Amino acid sequence: MAETDLQDADLDTPVQGEGEQFDEENRLKPEFVRQVRASLRDDNEDSTYDLVEPLHPADIADLFELVERDERATMAAAITDLMSSEVIAELNDYVREDMLEDLDPEAVAEIVELLDTDDAVQLIEDLDDADQRAILAEVEAEDRTAIEAALAYPEETAGRLMQRELIAVPDSMTVGNLIDYLRSNDDLPTEFWEVFVVDHRYHPIGSCQLSWIMRTPRDIALTDVMKRDQTLIPVDMDQEEVALRFQKYALISAAVVDDDGRLVGQMTVDDIVHIISEEAGEDALLMSGAGEGDINEPLREAYSARVRWLIANLGTAVVASAIIAFFGGAIEQLVALAILMPIVASIGGNAGTQTMAVTVRAIAMNQLTKSNTGRLVLRELKVALMNGATIAVLIGIATALIFTPQLGGVIAVAMVVNIIISGMAGVLVPVAFDRLNQDPAVASSVFVTMITDSMGFFAFLGLAVASGLVSL
Amino acid sequence: MAETDLQDADLDTPVQGEGEQFDEENRLKPEFVRQVRASLRDDNEDSTYDLVEPLHPADIADLFELVERDERATMAAAITDLMSSEVIAELNDYVREDMLEDLDPEAVAEIVELLDTDDAVQLIEDLDDADQRAILAEVEAEDRTAIEAALAYPEETAGRLMQRELIAVPDSMTVGNLIDYLRSNDDLPTEFWEVFVVDHRYHPIGSCQLSWIMRTPRDIALTDVMKRDQTLIPVDMDQEEVALRFQKYALISAAVVDDDGRLVGQMTVDDIVHIISEEAGEDALLMSGAGEGDINEPLREAYSARVRWLIANLGTAVVASAIIAFFGGAIEQLVALAILMPIVASIGGNAGTQTMAVTVRAIAMNQLTKSNTGRLVLRELKVALMNGATIAVLIGIATALIFTPQLGGVIAVAMVVNIIISGMAGVLVPVAFDRLNQDPAVASSVFVTMITDSMGFFAFLGLAVASGLVSL
Repeated sequence: MAETDLQDADLDTPVQGEGEQFDEENRLKPEFVRQVRASLRDDNEDSTYDLVEPLHPADIADLFELVERDERATMAAAITDLMSSEVIAELNDYVREDMLEDLDPEAVAEIVELLDTDDAVQLIEDLDDADQRAILAEVEAEDRTAIEAALAYPEETAGRLMQRELIAVPDSMTVGNLIDYLRSNDDLPTEFWEVFVVDHRYHPIGSCQLSWIMRTPRDIALTDVMKRDQTLIPVDMDQEEVALRFQKYALISAAVVDDDGRLVGQMTVDDIVHIISEEAGEDALLMSGAGEGDINEPLREAYSARVRWLIANLGTAVVASAIIAFFGGAIEQLVALAILMPIVASIGGNAGTQTMAVTVRAIAMNQLTKSNTGRLVLRELKVALMNGATIAVLIGIATALIFTPQLGGVIAVAMVVNIIISGMAGVLVPVAFDRLNQDPAVASSVFVTMITDSMGFFAFLGLAVASGLVSL
Repeated sequence: MAETDLQDADLDTPVQGEGEQFDEENRLKPEFVRQVRASLRDDNEDSTYDLVEPLHPADIADLFELVERDERATMAAAITDLMSSEVIAELNDYVREDMLEDLDPEAVAEIVELLDTDDAVQLIEDLDDADQRAILAEVEAEDRTAIEAALAYPEETAGRLMQRELIAVPDSMTVGNLIDYLRSNDDLPTEFWEVFVVDHRYHPIGSCQLSWIMRTPRDIALTDVMKRDQTLIPVDMDQEEVALRFQKYALISAAVVDDDGRLVGQMTVDDIVHIISEEAGEDALLMSGAGEGDINEPLREAYSARVRWLIANLGTAVVASAIIAFFGGAIEQLVALAILMPIVASIGGNAGTQTMAVTVRAIAMNQLTKSNTGRLVLRELKVALMNGATIAVLIGIATALIFTPQLGGVIAVAMVVNIIISGMAGVLVPVAFDRLNQDPAVASSVFVTMITDSMGFFAFLGLAVASGLVSL
């Protein structure tokens, strides 16, 4: 129903992301991508252009990602005047970097000059120093100064990410003055959501949402309309922290101030949306050791990030094996131990991962502080006891029926012990890394796995010996 | 440096989230929370009020989360006139629901009337039908109608989440008409970012950013300022899809239309920011089977979500055990097999989780389509080969030195085989679930684990037999 009606609506007005090129999830259809690729292979620039022209810049950026790597340059050449700054800003980082490598510094400099400072910085910040210098030498002085100023701040800080383009006005203005000022100055930015009011030292003293200004008579002073409570972002604040502030205080834009409290830029929510999505989504990737985890990441980088992790886990697996080796004699007496021991370790590993995922998320969302850590530990202990008891009953009865009641008792107790240890490790390891200012998503996983694996084998085999079922 | 200067800035203007109550990560300090709790225990309403009064509503909401459960009602009573709609909207879902349970329907209805429709809906949507009806009966007719209309849409769709308050104007207006209209009507919303232009059927035909309007002379027609390319959100669109559109097209607000294409509401980016963070962050929780994963989730719900997952994994672990049992005789001949077999399974599990995390993320971000699935499978095969070769060399040499060269050879080959199988499972399982319209983050993990565990044991023990090292 909705589909059909939207298509009717198309007759009056173009709707982004709807139309024959898109599937129901707003992704470019494989048939459309095939059409584009066919026309690229035929070297038919006109037909390529006609196909791409109706797309939104964000969809053109997606299309670059979907065609094969060696087709990208041909496509860029065929649609030069559609390659707007928005397309370039929306390109996947890896795809963009890869495409830039084929261009000479002059060509990159031309692109840089099209972009806003923040997008230009993003474009060149990952290049090596020599390439950066070569490109910047070709950029005109004003843009170069702005880009160099941004690059002087550490990566992923507000100083790097902020826009320098903003509207700042003195506190003496009225609503009428402001509207006249905006109407009569052609070189002001066109996209802004709030106006910043500054004092004589250029310190922000308040901000006005445009909707408030539009609903207020001309003769009212801006200082009577503006909100004085502000969220000021220091230039050196980390992007993750900036994103959390935007989320917490539901901000649309915020003033960025330097060490002296002077207004130097603004951050707007459309940039923050990307950061929030990136930061929230990366925990699953970090906990599995998949590095950046982008499907466009070069093979070599993906390999190097992942193999490092597998080697670390090889180390923890060897520790677990050493524990099994210690009980080698016991296993020779009763091979059922070898059959059952992976169950204890595997369920323990799972319980640990669950608790770790909950804890890492709570830390990332600033939900966990010293005020409630004790409460979380207690809660996880209770969940572990309940989980442990449930699983112990199931596996205990099954083992008693298939093997012996004594072995059933041993595996049941081992299961409770291991799920409790795993649950505690799942909370305490990430909390400890967070207190040591290490990213808990990166560092916790290897340690939690080592604890759950080793303790699973140790508890099960150790209890088998202690209960007199086998001897060492 | 920045810290000190921000404190200087405090003298001129209040800065949200800075001050003695906060630690460097903008969380409420444990000492502050302790102070509040002490004054709650002393039943000192004035001192509680004085402590809480300077906080932003979002921080008051955090404070409710940080005090103990049985202190929350006392705190709410002490700060009644600070309990603004913003505080209630910002409260953690579980904390809010828990607090509402103690209130009678009249009291909840009073709160509901304070809130915007979207926040009111969020407040009562999780209550059972009888409670909802009891509360709605107390709400005044106009609000009730709006809330009932929203509740008629499925959960997590645009219809549920949209705001009904918006500015829509006819296409005959000029910039001057619009400004006069906004200034002279007192009952219009005060917070909006775009104005929607509609035709006589109330179909949106364009939208104007306020900044464009403010920079344009009064006599220009809105139709000459507005953007005609719009992203229209159908009422029944899922929130995840809405969030992806906002992200992709960098939207601040968007019109929501019903089946007939009529404008019925708007979504704004500050609501979307919560959805993006929720949807992006939940993958890590879903893949580990930790359910909602909020640290305020009631114990019973956390237990029930997690134990279900552990039982499913018990099933997969039993499959793996059955494979080991099949090779029981072989293990009795060579206990080294029991010692080494968890290594193969564990590294395989890890490699599978890495690939799965990458694939699930790419699917969630709409990056993976039929156009590039084949490319991703090929890429993951290459990474698996490289990882497999590296780990095989390491473990093969170590095993050859500690045990025998033949066992070293067996484990090396088993490792390559298992990492390749795990890598392929890590891509193909989530892709298959996505094609079947199942959430790949939820469903994949159990299957991938089953494959990596079973295949790890099977490859290693099977190769040991096939190579003649042991017999069945």
